[in-house]
Amino acid sequence: MITCGIVGVTGYAGMELLKLISAHPRLQVTCVMSDSSAGLRLSDLYPWMETGALTLEPFKPEKLNQLDVLFLATPSGVSARYIEQLDAFEGVVVDLSGDLRLTGEVYATWYGKAPVHADTQAKAVYGLTEWNRESVRTARWISNPGCYATAVSLGLLPFLTDGLIEPDEVIVSACSGITGAGKALSTKTHHARSNENVQLYKIHTHQHIPEIEQTIHQMTGVEATVSLSTHLLPINRGIMATMHVVPTIDQTETEWIDLLSRAYRQEPFIRVQQGEPEIRTAVGSNYCDLWVYKDDRTGRLTIVSVIDNMQKGAAGQAIQNVNVRFGFNEALGLSTQPQYI
Amino acid sequence: MITCGIVGVTGYAGMELLKLISAHPRLQVTCVMSDSSAGLRLSDLYPWMETGALTLEPFKPEKLNQLDVLFLATPSGVSARYIEQLDAFEGVVVDLSGDLRLTGEVYATWYGKAPVHADTQAKAVYGLTEWNRESVRTARWISNPGCYATAVSLGLLPFLTDGLIEPDEVIVSACSGITGAGKALSTKTHHARSNENVQLYKIHTHQHIPEIEQTIHQMTGVEATVSLSTHLLPINRGIMATMHVVPTIDQTETEWIDLLSRAYRQEPFIRVQQGEPEIRTAVGSNYCDLWVYKDDRTGRLTIVSVIDNMQKGAAGQAIQNVNVRFGFNEALGLSTQPQYI
Amino acid sequence: MITCGIVGVTGYAGMELLKLISAHPRLQVTCVMSDSSAGLRLSDLYPWMETGALTLEPFKPEKLNQLDVLFLATPSGVSARYIEQLDAFEGVVVDLSGDLRLTGEVYATWYGKAPVHADTQAKAVYGLTEWNRESVRTARWISNPGCYATAVSLGLLPFLTDGLIEPDEVIVSACSGITGAGKALSTKTHHARSNENVQLYKIHTHQHIPEIEQTIHQMTGVEATVSLSTHLLPINRGIMATMHVVPTIDQTETEWIDLLSRAYRQEPFIRVQQGEPEIRTAVGSNYCDLWVYKDDRTGRLTIVSVIDNMQKGAAGQAIQNVNVRFGFNEALGLSTQPQYI
Amino acid sequence: MITCGIVGVTGYAGMELLKLISAHPRLQVTCVMSDSSAGLRLSDLYPWMETGALTLEPFKPEKLNQLDVLFLATPSGVSARYIEQLDAFEGVVVDLSGDLRLTGEVYATWYGKAPVHADTQAKAVYGLTEWNRESVRTARWISNPGCYATAVSLGLLPFLTDGLIEPDEVIVSACSGITGAGKALSTKTHHARSNENVQLYKIHTHQHIPEIEQTIHQMTGVEATVSLSTHLLPINRGIMATMHVVPTIDQTETEWIDLLSRAYRQEPFIRVQQGEPEIRTAVGSNYCDLWVYKDDRTGRLTIVSVIDNMQKGAAGQAIQNVNVRFGFNEALGLSTQPQYI
Repeated sequence: MITCGIVGVTGYAGMELLKLISAHPRLQVTCVMSDSSAGLRLSDLYPWMETGALTLEPFKPEKLNQLDVLFLATPSGVSARYIEQLDAFEGVVVDLSGDLRLTGEVYATWYGKAPVHADTQAKAVYGLTEWNRESVRTARWISNPGCYATAVSLGLLPFLTDGLIEPDEVIVSACSGITGAGKALSTKTHHARSNENVQLYKIHTHQHIPEIEQTIHQMTGVEATVSLSTHLLPINRGIMATMHVVPTIDQTETEWIDLLSRAYRQEPFIRVQQGEPEIRTAVGSNYCDLWVYKDDRTGRLTIVSVIDNMQKGAAGQAIQNVNVRFGFNEALGLSTQPQYI
Repeated sequence: MITCGIVGVTGYAGMELLKLISAHPRLQVTCVMSDSSAGLRLSDLYPWMETGALTLEPFKPEKLNQLDVLFLATPSGVSARYIEQLDAFEGVVVDLSGDLRLTGEVYATWYGKAPVHADTQAKAVYGLTEWNRESVRTARWISNPGCYATAVSLGLLPFLTDGLIEPDEVIVSACSGITGAGKALSTKTHHARSNENVQLYKIHTHQHIPEIEQTIHQMTGVEATVSLSTHLLPINRGIMATMHVVPTIDQTETEWIDLLSRAYRQEPFIRVQQGEPEIRTAVGSNYCDLWVYKDDRTGRLTIVSVIDNMQKGAAGQAIQNVNVRFGFNEALGLSTQPQYI
Repeated sequence: MITCGIVGVTGYAGMELLKLISAHPRLQVTCVMSDSSAGLRLSDLYPWMETGALTLEPFKPEKLNQLDVLFLATPSGVSARYIEQLDAFEGVVVDLSGDLRLTGEVYATWYGKAPVHADTQAKAVYGLTEWNRESVRTARWISNPGCYATAVSLGLLPFLTDGLIEPDEVIVSACSGITGAGKALSTKTHHARSNENVQLYKIHTHQHIPEIEQTIHQMTGVEATVSLSTHLLPINRGIMATMHVVPTIDQTETEWIDLLSRAYRQEPFIRVQQGEPEIRTAVGSNYCDLWVYKDDRTGRLTIVSVIDNMQKGAAGQAIQNVNVRFGFNEALGLSTQPQYI
Repeated sequence: MITCGIVGVTGYAGMELLKLISAHPRLQVTCVMSDSSAGLRLSDLYPWMETGALTLEPFKPEKLNQLDVLFLATPSGVSARYIEQLDAFEGVVVDLSGDLRLTGEVYATWYGKAPVHADTQAKAVYGLTEWNRESVRTARWISNPGCYATAVSLGLLPFLTDGLIEPDEVIVSACSGITGAGKALSTKTHHARSNENVQLYKIHTHQHIPEIEQTIHQMTGVEATVSLSTHLLPINRGIMATMHVVPTIDQTETEWIDLLSRAYRQEPFIRVQQGEPEIRTAVGSNYCDLWVYKDDRTGRLTIVSVIDNMQKGAAGQAIQNVNVRFGFNEALGLSTQPQYI
């Protein structure tokens, strides 16, 4: 068994990791950490889940020696603090915050916080599994992608790879369930405020914008400029990204669908769907579902991508990366069964 | 008192008209019609509302003679059928379906139904009050705008009037509450399906697309091409349109906000807001709330428009038009009090 | 105009008072207080509402002299603190917290806080309008009833008045929308937790239990023992109380309905309904809707009561009491138009 | 592999069976039937699920010969029609409708339909697994319990077994998610109506009332009279039953909790919980979670039971029964992982 530690187990990503790992035949959680809730028993934190007998401990690097994998399910800024103490740790680190995703100056600009050291950041491999699998296979540090960044990048990359769309006319309108805003209490996520509401937030300033542009550049060499608007919805889980792009070649809708299908033909977690998109086809699973439509009137394509922000957009992709890293079947222990209703 | 008849009083728009008119000091409903539910008492249809003693009657043109105003709150296609029988009616007709909005061929293309006669259509004045007030003042036939068309047009028109944005790069991502899909039972609106879901629909084929483009042309002379994606949300009421446009001049965000504020300075139902947009600021009222943001990185503007699809997007704007038509205070009887929580 | 002050205007009850008073032709808010948010302009707190130019001030008794009415829309415990400073205030005080509802020892037991002085408490009149109208008419201090207590008492009192049900076999299962839990941030009201959930709370310890029993005794002389279970629902507004009682006489269901109808025949805000109950018939209005059913198999009656917890259960009833107190039409400015859809 | 057929695979219970069986290592669906949708491919019906290559067939008894198990996931009345054609079928039948639950006259009274033949009904074993395991082990016909009946019976039976509560003072207030109302389109389940609403239905007439009373009698010998009120909630899944009972002996709350814990100590799917109940602890799993509280003031107990109406209340319990019937581990393939957030 691969032994795993989770730092930040009280948050949503930590909880989801716990659920996924408990269903995974080769992984086992042996250490759960939380500075704020140290001393609490895991079974008291999650009385509705089979959690075993672990107790939350404060983060201490010296306790990590036994672990094969350490998941940092901590907020950005907090991860950075722990990362600086992990030099001696010999296992695999998977960071689910954004603290290893961007290089120093870009990070500082978009997160408004101090970045980790440049050489620490450079050690991290970006864990967008489908596009960086070979690097993940040997990585010691894995920077798990952001939820919006995952949905958007998976939808755009096949089109940008061969220069099939204009890189400066990418308009993404995306929406996320409430868990995307995290577990911390806030006015925006008070039920009476968020219910029966749509809240647009971080307009032109969402930190996944540079992450998407950097990913596009890293994977395709293209310098793209992406407009992203993010809407908070009164649902618990799920991201839908509706992307409006301008093709550089003339093809039928069927040809575009074929192109997308071919790009992901081998992928266990990417499905090219037809019919009208809905967020539920992916929620509860590790799938990313994609659709593409051609507007014959305007010439534009509409690409739609949906994921479960807690699974493919966070804990699920983290496990997928661990599966790749340890040579397991990539789908091991992951859900291919959306909740749907 | 101005006497009003409502055809299609069992639908959502009919219900909302009934509610609004009951709060209006100068309007009175004296006749309610419904072919499907004729014979039913209004008080049995809406036991939770003060409705008076009316009984639903089948549509018969000869019964309409006493009416000052006839509201057609019937679905597209159904309105058309009734419209052909209204030649002798001397009062004001307000049609809330799309049957008087588009000229014949365009209508046939987008609605997939037979249009009304060209001269009937030509008699109708498009009731986007803020932009067509003078025509509404003397109209006998008023074609009430569509819900998405209202939200989008009110947001775009001030920018298109003076050629301040590129007319062919208008990308609108919009979402609507479930009432936008109507009262008819459907799989898409079964609670277990729509709840915790986002459903993208009528991709590149929504009938409000040509309505928006025609309105832009009618009000500004500009030939624009609009991309519109429409998402069905698990909320009851409200439309949010997030519009991505490319400005032709260089101005600060503050200057753009000022421009918008000046455009609507006199308008009782349009508010230019600041802060982060949410759909709730307008829901329950006849307001259209607008925001504009500049993305210094991409040069694009994001314009956001929210309305209550049942009020400003349907019954509220219909009453607003009647107020204009009869010379009342334009806000008479209309709500300026959003529900919010 | 009757000048009104609101203490605690940042909370839900304060916000609802503001909305209702702005629609009231004889009341005017001239002073808004909040210790936590003093200095904030009302228009910044509620940018979606027409609020005028008021600024929030800290609570100071000496500023209240100009006011005809002071609403305390503060939490229990906080109201008590302000009440002790209101000896010199000559206007009418309406307290929406529970701090004036119970006598000292009972208050201390159920609220776990220090009660107000016994003689202060004794000055307050219990504002269950329909049952205490004559006392409200001349009251200087009005203790506004709790939300559950309003729904339950209005349903039970007609049956207890003449000893028609067993006073010790009253089982009430009630549920409330999320606003009932207040605006303060809490785990229970984080959207991701409360959404798609039902949470049972304060089992056998809800502070409205003694309030209901005391009201029954005060209005009917009967010593009743009430079991109340309270469920938090993923909706914004509304209370439904489903009450199971044992009749002492044998009557048909129709006779029970008639009895209830007669009891409230003159009441502008109480409706005896038929058909299947739903919470929406009252939400958005000041109505209390009641139903009664007889189970011929068990002999029991099921009485159902629904209200909007923010209106009839809080701010609406407060205004109703002010209307009575100042001799206005009791329904003045209050909503008789449920939102419904 | 045990081969399974599902009749009524287009409904919610059929869909859930399909999901559960696809995760079950020993069961396999080899035949799916639906009279209304025959000819449709399963993969077109559920494009979001891994369904394999089956096509929906019309119900024909002669096609069933190869099957080990036939699930009837059809509505009441429809199941009855199929049941009459299953005399020759030699496999195990699991009926999820109510058509095998009640004897003829009682069925006719509560369902308002013609019952199946008395000897057919008599062959069926009531599949409340925890209380009828030995009979299920050898059953050919299994009548799967109703959702409310499951939640209520599991909560009450330990208390009735030894006469610890009054059998004629059992008051149950229960609520269900919208899937409980089925997939058929109806006004009550149109999102705009059910959302932000609570709807009380089938008052004193719910067909699970006689099922509960019959189960109590069958399992404990006690003749009980149960009052049940059922509320439809704006959530997708889950039942909470809040039960008010009168104990016949005097014990502390801790002793009552112990009693309940002992009763179910060996059960893999029943958990006695502490803290405040919520519906989410069970939703997404096959658990039934129970709580019990003592009200020292009234002497009453409050027993709370929550289940996922689609799992333990329908398809989950059906699989649990099949596991028992075929000698598998009772929990095989079933979920012990609630969705929670």
